[in-house]
Amino acid sequence: MFKGLCAFPLTPLIAGEIDERTFVSLITNLAEARVDSIGALGSTGSYAYLTRAQRLRGTQLAVTAANGIPVMTSIGAVRVEEVLNLADDAQQAGVSGVLLAPLSYQPLGGDEVYELYSRVVRELSVPLCVYDNPATTGFSFSDELLSAIAGLPGVNSVKLGSLPAEREEARVRIAALRRKIPAHVTIGISGDAQSARGLLAGCDVWYSVLAGLFPQYSRILTRAAQAGDEEKVNQLDGALEALWVFYRRYGSLRVIATVAELLGRVQTPCLPFPLRTIQGGERELLQQKLNLLNLY
Amino acid sequence: MFKGLCAFPLTPLIAGEIDERTFVSLITNLAEARVDSIGALGSTGSYAYLTRAQRLRGTQLAVTAANGIPVMTSIGAVRVEEVLNLADDAQQAGVSGVLLAPLSYQPLGGDEVYELYSRVVRELSVPLCVYDNPATTGFSFSDELLSAIAGLPGVNSVKLGSLPAEREEARVRIAALRRKIPAHVTIGISGDAQSARGLLAGCDVWYSVLAGLFPQYSRILTRAAQAGDEEKVNQLDGALEALWVFYRRYGSLRVIATVAELLGRVQTPCLPFPLRTIQGGERELLQQKLNLLNLY
Repeated sequence: MFKGLCAFPLTPLIAGEIDERTFVSLITNLAEARVDSIGALGSTGSYAYLTRAQRLRGTQLAVTAANGIPVMTSIGAVRVEEVLNLADDAQQAGVSGVLLAPLSYQPLGGDEVYELYSRVVRELSVPLCVYDNPATTGFSFSDELLSAIAGLPGVNSVKLGSLPAEREEARVRIAALRRKIPAHVTIGISGDAQSARGLLAGCDVWYSVLAGLFPQYSRILTRAAQAGDEEKVNQLDGALEALWVFYRRYGSLRVIATVAELLGRVQTPCLPFPLRTIQGGERELLQQKLNLLNLY
Repeated sequence: MFKGLCAFPLTPLIAGEIDERTFVSLITNLAEARVDSIGALGSTGSYAYLTRAQRLRGTQLAVTAANGIPVMTSIGAVRVEEVLNLADDAQQAGVSGVLLAPLSYQPLGGDEVYELYSRVVRELSVPLCVYDNPATTGFSFSDELLSAIAGLPGVNSVKLGSLPAEREEARVRIAALRRKIPAHVTIGISGDAQSARGLLAGCDVWYSVLAGLFPQYSRILTRAAQAGDEEKVNQLDGALEALWVFYRRYGSLRVIATVAELLGRVQTPCLPFPLRTIQGGERELLQQKLNLLNLY
């Protein structure tokens, strides 16, 4: 399941509770667009703001609505016993894989992060994707640590949070990382604004926030990358630069949630308190930019 | 309760469960040393790694063992509904105040942090201490934001995480902050290695990790600062430099937990997985340094 396009949908919330009907409609949209996999309750799905019961319920709804498309869900939590409980829940709900970022309150050392993954994979029967997301976890993986963790049985993918800005350097980094990890472990790119560069640099999968709302467009971009059509990838990605400007300023979650609100795809407000979608003049500007884009 | 010396004890854990007998013995030691207040289940007390039930139970044990000394407990959580539940629990357990850091998964903006405190204090009947701890939350308060939040009813203290390294600059900063906040809001210093400087710069309270294990020594240092005896403060603080070197390298929690293990005050290991106390040669070095210190 860790190849091609993995779409990360929002989990729309109303006063802290999942708006289930809307959530299911977002998943159904992804299933109909035939994305390769669905990352339900990822960062974009606000997993860290939900209770264990909500995460189980959301995962069950996602697996059903995905209609056979593999679903991955996040099992991240600060308390390791909770991570293991969430892993049990996810597996019982029928996920095909789990996503784990090294959440912590105290900043972690590399040896501690290795121990965390080592303990969790021992208790899993579905594959795990290692989630490198320094912006939310405060922890940055070195390629050496990623490679050590990728060698653990049950680890099947790494989801990279950062990539060199320059195209050739990105290619060199991905090639170097690939030499250090087992052949069955795929390399994924996240951070939509750098994902076209990541795919062209040789990443196997786009862990995509954009695809959670616009799966068809994202799928066409992914397929072009898979076919080696660099020109088409750059054209499709370049058209989104107006959106990436907002991503860099507000983070992908606030932007995609604002877009979903503007399009009436979710109720307003849809984010967990105290996170706010973009307001005022900037919201109007985003609406204007959106009107000029042909997203689907 | 937000003046003088506030001691933050460890919450020793055995396989993820509170070692209650040892926890109570640590609190009893603080009560006997007559610290001014106790910050149970703070960062040093690993609150973020505990379940709601554990946090309630730990707070109840702390209030009882504190024997009349005011207890503050942390109500931090990523999910705001959980923060409010924890506030209810803490108040029912009889705390005299609560401590709140702006925990988040997505990095927060200043307006979001203000909204968080604004919502929480509306539902509190005990005073709140604002907890600035960039290392664990990823969020840095500006003095403007601290001042806005300090103006909310129910906010009675701010716990600073950083202070200028230079003595005179520290004094200027504290004086400037004091002019911006209401008179009833105290300013506290945390980060033991900078706390003597903070107290001499005019902070009202030392939110102290050291005091969780060595309340007498910490109390003498605090009283000296309150009496304006700069020479004695510097002498007592200077003697601890060997310890501060470890703090800077490993963080205060790992160091104080290692010291507690070395002294047999807690079982080994005492930290929540995957956090590790200091091991190997560095542990031996810490033991040697400790033997040269006269801590109590």
